[in-house]
Amino acid sequence: MPSSLVPSDIFEALHAVGPYIQKTPLLFSSRLNEWLGAELFFKAEGFQTTGSFKARGAIYAMLRAKEKARSSLRIALFSSGNYAQGCAWAGQKLQIPVEVFMPESTSSIKIQATRSYGAKVTLSPTRAQAEALCEEAERQGAIRIPPFDHDDVIAGGGTCVLEALMEKSDIQALFAPCGGGGLLSGSLLAREALELSCKIYGCEPLQASDAYRSVKEGKILKFSTQPSSLADGARTPGICPRTFHYLKKLDHFYLASEQEIAYWCQWLNHLLKTPVEPTAALAMVGAWKHLQANPTLKGPLLIVLSGGNLSAQTQQKIWQHSWLETIPSRELELSQEMDAVLPDLQPIHL
Amino acid sequence: MPSSLVPSDIFEALHAVGPYIQKTPLLFSSRLNEWLGAELFFKAEGFQTTGSFKARGAIYAMLRAKEKARSSLRIALFSSGNYAQGCAWAGQKLQIPVEVFMPESTSSIKIQATRSYGAKVTLSPTRAQAEALCEEAERQGAIRIPPFDHDDVIAGGGTCVLEALMEKSDIQALFAPCGGGGLLSGSLLAREALELSCKIYGCEPLQASDAYRSVKEGKILKFSTQPSSLADGARTPGICPRTFHYLKKLDHFYLASEQEIAYWCQWLNHLLKTPVEPTAALAMVGAWKHLQANPTLKGPLLIVLSGGNLSAQTQQKIWQHSWLETIPSRELELSQEMDAVLPDLQPIHL
Repeated sequence: MPSSLVPSDIFEALHAVGPYIQKTPLLFSSRLNEWLGAELFFKAEGFQTTGSFKARGAIYAMLRAKEKARSSLRIALFSSGNYAQGCAWAGQKLQIPVEVFMPESTSSIKIQATRSYGAKVTLSPTRAQAEALCEEAERQGAIRIPPFDHDDVIAGGGTCVLEALMEKSDIQALFAPCGGGGLLSGSLLAREALELSCKIYGCEPLQASDAYRSVKEGKILKFSTQPSSLADGARTPGICPRTFHYLKKLDHFYLASEQEIAYWCQWLNHLLKTPVEPTAALAMVGAWKHLQANPTLKGPLLIVLSGGNLSAQTQQKIWQHSWLETIPSRELELSQEMDAVLPDLQPIHL
Repeated sequence: MPSSLVPSDIFEALHAVGPYIQKTPLLFSSRLNEWLGAELFFKAEGFQTTGSFKARGAIYAMLRAKEKARSSLRIALFSSGNYAQGCAWAGQKLQIPVEVFMPESTSSIKIQATRSYGAKVTLSPTRAQAEALCEEAERQGAIRIPPFDHDDVIAGGGTCVLEALMEKSDIQALFAPCGGGGLLSGSLLAREALELSCKIYGCEPLQASDAYRSVKEGKILKFSTQPSSLADGARTPGICPRTFHYLKKLDHFYLASEQEIAYWCQWLNHLLKTPVEPTAALAMVGAWKHLQANPTLKGPLLIVLSGGNLSAQTQQKIWQHSWLETIPSRELELSQEMDAVLPDLQPIHL
C-alpha cells in the first residue's frame, strides 16, 4: 500500500509523542572533527527510552490506533529487535495489551527486555511461523503494527530527525541506516516538512544491500534467506512498496563492509562515550565515505545513531580485533577481507 | 609527606578548574533502581574531558604550579593511565610543556592519546626505569606532579564529588574506587567541606586490596609486584602516607572479584548507555554489596564512575562471558572462580 502521509503529519507526530519520549542530545567529538576536517553531529537515539528511536514510531502508532479504536484494543507485531521493546514500552505507557511474536533464535536479553515492559512474548521455531502466528492474531481482532510498513510508524520514527534538523537547520547532509527503510522515509518527510535542502543518504551493509539494489534497478529485490551482517537492524530481507516510494528520493546510498562497521562501532563508542549499535554505525560509515568522496566538504553533517542496544555476543564480535590503534582520517582505507560472498537477490512481485 | 589541605581548599579548587572542565551529569537508571529497590546516582566522569576525573586534578595542580613558578615551567610525570592524558590535556590548555614517562608495555592507544594532546612521551623498558627517568627530569628542573601523592591533585580530583554532593546533598553513602587513594581522599575532603554526614566507602579489587589491608593493619602494605586485575586504575602497588591519612577515615572498604567487576561493566554500559571502566565499576560493586549487607536501605547512594576509557583488549575481557542474561538484584551472588590467588603484601617503611 502506498503512503498517504503529507509532510506536515510529522509535526503532528512530534507534538503527540513529545510527552512520552526523550528529546535526545546532538553529540559531537572535537577530536573526530579535527581528524576528519569536518563538523559532524550525532543524534544519539541510544539515549531514547528503550535504547532506540523505535520507541517513537511505536508510541505514535499506538496513540493513533487508540484514537481510532471502537472497542478494546489489542496490538500484535512481529519483531526480534528494538521495535519489540519499543512497542512493549508503548503498550505499558498507554495501557494497551501487546503481543510480540518472535523466532526462538531471538537473544534472551531481548526477549527478557520485551517481557519486562509487560508484553506477552510468543516464540516460534522459525521466523515464518512467528509471522504466520502474528497474522493469525490479526485475523482474531488484534491490530497489527508492522515495524516499517506503516505510515504512523514512519512519521513517529522520523521525529528524531525532525528534532535534530529543528535544532540545527544548517545541516548539509544527513546519514541514516537502512533496514526496512522506515527511518529514511521519516527523514525524507522531515526534510520536506521543514522545507530544507539538505542531502539525505541511506547507509546499508554491503552484505544486505537489497534497498540499494532495488532503487538502482527500479524494482524491489528481496533476499530469499536473511542476509548476515553485524548490523542486525539492517538484515531485513526486503523493503516494501511504501518505503520504496520514499527511498527512490534519496540522494544516494553508501554501502558498509563488516570491517568498517566494527571500526566505527569501536571509535564512536570511544569518542562519544556511548555504545553505538552496528546498525547505527552504518550511518557513520556513510558519512565517512561521503567525506572521502568530497575532499573539500566541511559539513555540518548529521549522523543518525538509531540505537545503543548491544548484546554481549555482538560486543564480542565488535571488539575481536582492536581498531583503536588506527586513527580515523579521510584517507584511511580498510580492507574488505571479512566480507562474505553476497547472497542472491530475487525480484519480488509488487 | 602528610597533607596540608584544609576542607575549604576544595572550594577553591572547584572555582579554579571550573572554566576548564566539564560539569559532568548525575545519571540514574529507573530499571536498575527498581531491580535493586534503592535510589542510585552515578557521577559520570567518563564524560569529563579526556574521559576521566583525572583531568580535574591535573589541571588544578598545573594551575597552582604556574602561580608559584618563578621561571619557565616544565612538568614531568610517570603514568601509564588516565592521569597521563589528563596532564597532557592540561599542559596543552595552559601552554605548559609536559613530559610523560611510561613503561613500553603501555597500550599504544594511551600513548597515542597522550601524544595527541601535545605531550612528549618517553618510553622505558620497565616501570622502574620510567620512574627513575622521571626523577632524573625533576633533578634537572622539571616540576614533578605525581598522580595521587600531591595535595593539589587530591583537591582537584575531589571536585567531582564536591559537584555531585552540591547537586544532591541528601546522599546517604558514597562509593568510589581505590587505586592510590587520591579520589577517596578528595571525597573525604568534599564531605568535610560541605559538613555532610554521608558515609564514604572505598572499593578495591580483591586481587589488589593493599589499601584495605593497610587500613586494617594500621600500616602501609605494598605489593612487591604489580597485582593483576581488570581494574587497571586500581593496580597501584601501594598507597602513600598522604592518602593513608585520609583512607583511615573511610567508613569501610568493599572488595570486588574480577567476575563482579565484569558483571557491572556490562550492566552499567547497557543501562546507562555509557562505557564504564573496570576501575569505575568497582564503585558499583561496592554499592551493590552495601545494599546486600543492608537489606532495608533505600539510598540515595552516589557511585563515582571515575572514567570511561577502555582499550579493545579490556573490552574483549569484559565481554568474554555474557552477564546480560543475569538480571541484577540484591540477592544475586556471583561465584568467584575467575579470581587468582592473592599475591603477598609486604610492609613498607614509612
